[in-house]
Amino acid sequence: MRPEKDHERDMEIMVAEAPVADFRRAAVDLHKLLEPSAIAVIGASEDTKKVGGEIVANLKLGGFTGQVFPVNPRSREICNYPCFSSVLDIPVAAELAVVAVNAPQVPAVIRQCGEAGIPLAVVLSSGFSEAGKPGAVLQDELNRAIAESGVRVVGPNCIGLMNVGRRMFCGFGPGFRNYALATGPVAMVTQSGGFGFSVVGLCNHQNLRFSKIISTGNECDVSTADIIDHILDDDEIRVIVAYIEGVKDGRRLLEVGEKALERGKPILCWKVGNSNVARAAVASHTANLSAPYELFKAAFASSGFIEIREIEDLVDVARGFLGGKIPKGRRVAVVTTSGGSGVLMADRCDEAQLTLPPPTPSLLDRISAMLPPHSAVANPIDLTAQVGNDAGRFNRVVKVFAEDPAYDQVLVRYGAVQSPNAPAWAEELASIARNTEKPLLVAWSRVPDRSSQALIILEKNSIPWFVTPGRAVTAAGALADFSSRRQVLSRSRRAESTAFKKIHLNLPPAAGSLGEGASKRIVRAYGIPTVEEKLLSLAEIGELKKSPFQFPVVMKVESPHIPHKTEAGAVITGIRSLSELKKGAQKIVASAQEYRSDAAIEGVLLQQTCLGTELILGAFVDECFGPVVVLGLGGIYAEILKDVTRRFAPISETSARDMILELKAAPIFKGYRRMPPLDIDALAVAISRLSYLIVHHGSRIREIDINPLFVGSAGNGVVAADALVILNAASAPGAHRMD
Amino acid sequence: MRPEKDHERDMEIMVAEAPVADFRRAAVDLHKLLEPSAIAVIGASEDTKKVGGEIVANLKLGGFTGQVFPVNPRSREICNYPCFSSVLDIPVAAELAVVAVNAPQVPAVIRQCGEAGIPLAVVLSSGFSEAGKPGAVLQDELNRAIAESGVRVVGPNCIGLMNVGRRMFCGFGPGFRNYALATGPVAMVTQSGGFGFSVVGLCNHQNLRFSKIISTGNECDVSTADIIDHILDDDEIRVIVAYIEGVKDGRRLLEVGEKALERGKPILCWKVGNSNVARAAVASHTANLSAPYELFKAAFASSGFIEIREIEDLVDVARGFLGGKIPKGRRVAVVTTSGGSGVLMADRCDEAQLTLPPPTPSLLDRISAMLPPHSAVANPIDLTAQVGNDAGRFNRVVKVFAEDPAYDQVLVRYGAVQSPNAPAWAEELASIARNTEKPLLVAWSRVPDRSSQALIILEKNSIPWFVTPGRAVTAAGALADFSSRRQVLSRSRRAESTAFKKIHLNLPPAAGSLGEGASKRIVRAYGIPTVEEKLLSLAEIGELKKSPFQFPVVMKVESPHIPHKTEAGAVITGIRSLSELKKGAQKIVASAQEYRSDAAIEGVLLQQTCLGTELILGAFVDECFGPVVVLGLGGIYAEILKDVTRRFAPISETSARDMILELKAAPIFKGYRRMPPLDIDALAVAISRLSYLIVHHGSRIREIDINPLFVGSAGNGVVAADALVILNAASAPGAHRMD
Repeated sequence: MRPEKDHERDMEIMVAEAPVADFRRAAVDLHKLLEPSAIAVIGASEDTKKVGGEIVANLKLGGFTGQVFPVNPRSREICNYPCFSSVLDIPVAAELAVVAVNAPQVPAVIRQCGEAGIPLAVVLSSGFSEAGKPGAVLQDELNRAIAESGVRVVGPNCIGLMNVGRRMFCGFGPGFRNYALATGPVAMVTQSGGFGFSVVGLCNHQNLRFSKIISTGNECDVSTADIIDHILDDDEIRVIVAYIEGVKDGRRLLEVGEKALERGKPILCWKVGNSNVARAAVASHTANLSAPYELFKAAFASSGFIEIREIEDLVDVARGFLGGKIPKGRRVAVVTTSGGSGVLMADRCDEAQLTLPPPTPSLLDRISAMLPPHSAVANPIDLTAQVGNDAGRFNRVVKVFAEDPAYDQVLVRYGAVQSPNAPAWAEELASIARNTEKPLLVAWSRVPDRSSQALIILEKNSIPWFVTPGRAVTAAGALADFSSRRQVLSRSRRAESTAFKKIHLNLPPAAGSLGEGASKRIVRAYGIPTVEEKLLSLAEIGELKKSPFQFPVVMKVESPHIPHKTEAGAVITGIRSLSELKKGAQKIVASAQEYRSDAAIEGVLLQQTCLGTELILGAFVDECFGPVVVLGLGGIYAEILKDVTRRFAPISETSARDMILELKAAPIFKGYRRMPPLDIDALAVAISRLSYLIVHHGSRIREIDINPLFVGSAGNGVVAADALVILNAASAPGAHRMD
Repeated sequence: MRPEKDHERDMEIMVAEAPVADFRRAAVDLHKLLEPSAIAVIGASEDTKKVGGEIVANLKLGGFTGQVFPVNPRSREICNYPCFSSVLDIPVAAELAVVAVNAPQVPAVIRQCGEAGIPLAVVLSSGFSEAGKPGAVLQDELNRAIAESGVRVVGPNCIGLMNVGRRMFCGFGPGFRNYALATGPVAMVTQSGGFGFSVVGLCNHQNLRFSKIISTGNECDVSTADIIDHILDDDEIRVIVAYIEGVKDGRRLLEVGEKALERGKPILCWKVGNSNVARAAVASHTANLSAPYELFKAAFASSGFIEIREIEDLVDVARGFLGGKIPKGRRVAVVTTSGGSGVLMADRCDEAQLTLPPPTPSLLDRISAMLPPHSAVANPIDLTAQVGNDAGRFNRVVKVFAEDPAYDQVLVRYGAVQSPNAPAWAEELASIARNTEKPLLVAWSRVPDRSSQALIILEKNSIPWFVTPGRAVTAAGALADFSSRRQVLSRSRRAESTAFKKIHLNLPPAAGSLGEGASKRIVRAYGIPTVEEKLLSLAEIGELKKSPFQFPVVMKVESPHIPHKTEAGAVITGIRSLSELKKGAQKIVASAQEYRSDAAIEGVLLQQTCLGTELILGAFVDECFGPVVVLGLGGIYAEILKDVTRRFAPISETSARDMILELKAAPIFKGYRRMPPLDIDALAVAISRLSYLIVHHGSRIREIDINPLFVGSAGNGVVAADALVILNAASAPGAHRMD
């Protein structure tokens, strides 16, 4: 039983520069999708009960001002539009085709659109990948038609799209027959047409108005991310709403989320299909595969996506952003006329990680003079009903908080909004708002109908208002999150120049796990320290006169076939004598052989015992999101207590540091009780290095586990005590396009 | 340095039966509070801008049908009611006094009420404990007047109360001038009058109607819990809403919460003042001390309190309960006409710990026949817009799910509610609802105004409906939680006969920490096993020829003055030789002396090394909630990762088991991966025993920490490796009245 060293020989490491992969895909030009001058409706019908009839009727009745060309060989005229027997007969080049023919005809129709020079098509027809295997075959055929014709396709299996401002009601179903819909600064991109339009209806009822609504269906070509990307450049749109069940390219989603931060436009997002049971439902509803929710959450947390759960969240957060002001930080002042509301808002601020700095002495001076004696000046400040009835006095206090540099946002809850002086109060508040760059949010707590005059004044002045104090805090929290993420993004962009250069690894060509020694050499090649160790055969151990390392030592079986050594009884820790060592080596080899009789055993690895806190650091290539790095508290705690944080590779050392401090166990790193702080610097370097390792070699390396990684106290570094690398085969078709 | 054994001598343990303390206080008779035949208004005024004027006007204009007796020596008539110069002059015995005089006069007025035979008073006057030190003195005086007169008092510093059905608008502020308010089956008890009435107004706007509203102010006598207790017996009320900043008697709150479960009436509760900053705001707003939020959460989780955060939650959960049906379990069927809604509801069910059992073969058979071919029969089931337009077919499917014993609730989201056949659909649904005991909840997803006819039909038939699918799930979750808690309560009530008998402990009279040995003897007296150990002096250790226990052993300094031994460097674990043992003993004694030079060192405790999983098990007496037991994963994880669960003592073994399985680390107990399951039985016994120990001796024992408690694999028991008992002085005034 001599250790086989094939892997080692294969793995001579060459240090060299190599290009870093680029994950970004080319964006689709969707310029004409929502602004076409001419639309061809292929599969148009005189029967408005059919989809192809309803579309033409909706374009007509909605008042679309562009040209409409119905296509149907059996009709001469539909809704007074002359009808063509083929898309090739249309006299001008339509800029958009809407396709409502039967599924099997769709690929041929797309090819015809290509011949006719139509760059974009929306396919409403269903019967594709959502309809089992025959449908999936048809969708493959459609994809070929798309690739060969160059036509870009939205759908299939969608319900259409709408541009309210252009009176383009281009779809079917009850949502499209609401011609009275008023336009506004919000857009919706939805993978569920029915759900999306019910949201539009409910929001409209609360004065939140949409201008552009796109249902994306199966997304065989143009994706939710492509459409969001396009809309982010649309000056008319200031808030985007998305309903997402799953995406095929998570990286692209992250990319448009970052663009949203840059543009200052939030994407308010329902991400559904997150539970196992919901994933089953998604699978039968669309053909998308949902990546685990945790990765979506990680993508959202570093970009402009703000998760919402209910219509109320959507309305509130959108109102906050439509105010047009992004706070500089998380510090909030709360001015109320009800102690109860103040307490509730303080709780909610705490939950939203908004801080409530107490008034400074100079602020105290200015405010105290405005209040009756014995009033408690604090933050939240309760001006009581007494001051609340004096709108002027109330607003003087608001103005002082708004002017104080210690606060980034001011939340106001005014109790006397039903009184006749409410409009005057609102006008005054508007003049305060005009003179500050800080968001000024108003909680109303009254039935809106009774205060409509004041509300109109607030709305005219872009002052966001909310039905309850808690809902005002929801909006304030979202604004602060958006601002924080924008700061983090710009910081990490600045840090990107520290990218680690690619190091060539000669990896063995076959798929499968590497042994511990081989795995550690890869980790070491990227500059992550590994434990001192020696691989010996049982015979060599039998002949030892002294331990190669100071006791206590650790001992493990080295085998590429036993990735989970503890489970196999192939590890002993805390060995304190030579006789323990010799006996132990026999025992673990026997255990390993019993655990898996065909395991190739390459020897016994003797290691120095590591000191420090146990972590697990890993990286893998996700089908949807590409290379991901995972960090967790070690042992079983990461798994059971779910104290795990995730980031998309590559990761700068700055971002790695954020990642560490995101763990619930972060207090341990900062020095808990009398324990010394841990070496965050060294850990951040290790995280960043591992992230480049998976980026550079993600086409071959499917997964890397460093478990445990020991982190010493500050200055004492990190050391990988074990590592496991799992490879794809050299030509694995599932490998991510990266290398 | 001989061990001092004073504590040991004091602590001879006598096993004997002793009575178990009773935490329950006598309830107040509030019968006349909301149903008085005659009200005296003391401090009445002819000026309706004054509180004492507004009250009388509100009683008059609101249409109160009982007698009203204004009391003011300077008036002859107020609002056409003859006025009296003193409460003693009123010809009949008023059943309720409303007091609006200046604060300093209030105590005398209460005494007069006593003389006049008025059993209850509502004190609106402010200037008591909410107003700093002079106010607190006045409140003490008020408390003496209450005790001596026998009059029970609501307030002071409240805004009054309302019984809409009796037209009793008995308070001041804008909320009381809304005479058009319609009555309904909901009651509100609120510590913030302003906030409470804004909630009533907003709910009323959504057709959720209140009949009884009580603002409780400073609660110097009658508490929120007293009033809830009373209202739970009121047949007119089916749902109670509470706004709570803090309570003085948490046990009583828990008790009424349990009564709520028994009565089948939920208490929908805003618990605010939970963050540190909010607690500061509460302190200046009312005089209550908020117990840490975690204890409130523990009390809610085992009783009929359902926490809410927003008006929408309140409206939805109340609607769910007003349907009048409590589900038997957590199994839900979801029937939709939109895949998107189904996916969203599945996610939300998962979050709410509702399960979605897939259809059984027999159910599949029944339903498949009703659907077009190729429809996916699942749960959630998406009947698509096609079936959605056929109300009859849709409801046939709903009926099959409602009849199937595999489901406890049915959630329906019907897409075609704007169609002309919606009323017929609603009628049919009502007939299904009449024939089932299961809650049938309807998600609407449309602007209510457009479907009002169908909604009226649902409301008439007590079918709860919701604006969005997510909100329907919120209600379903609350119904299931209420049902689960009711089952747990009845199970633990049945188990109560297993109460552990009191064991007398002769505790030393002084306050302070006991040493480890003394602490462990107490723990052992209640049957919790402790580690085998031996207390030796340094000299005795120096003379040892062999270790008293098998290596590895643990060694600690024994001193009542060093409760945190690890911090003091006074612990060594894993000692494997006699020489290590001798050197180590010198070292830890030196460390301990350096850590605290005046510490009395009683020796060095040698212990067997324990095996198993480390937990922390503790008990303490909370000022507000009384004796509490806390269980957490050991080491720093309980504190940092907050994997901790809490229960109020005494705790049956059955409840202790629930407590263990509530930990996030519960998978470890059940046997994680290849690890054996832990001894849950033995741990449950230990928890229950500790709970009786703190119940029996809570007047002296302030706190007990068993840290670590090692739990072995199933059958191998638990063992306390360390314990710390902290005593109150024998006559400590702060001690809870229990023993």
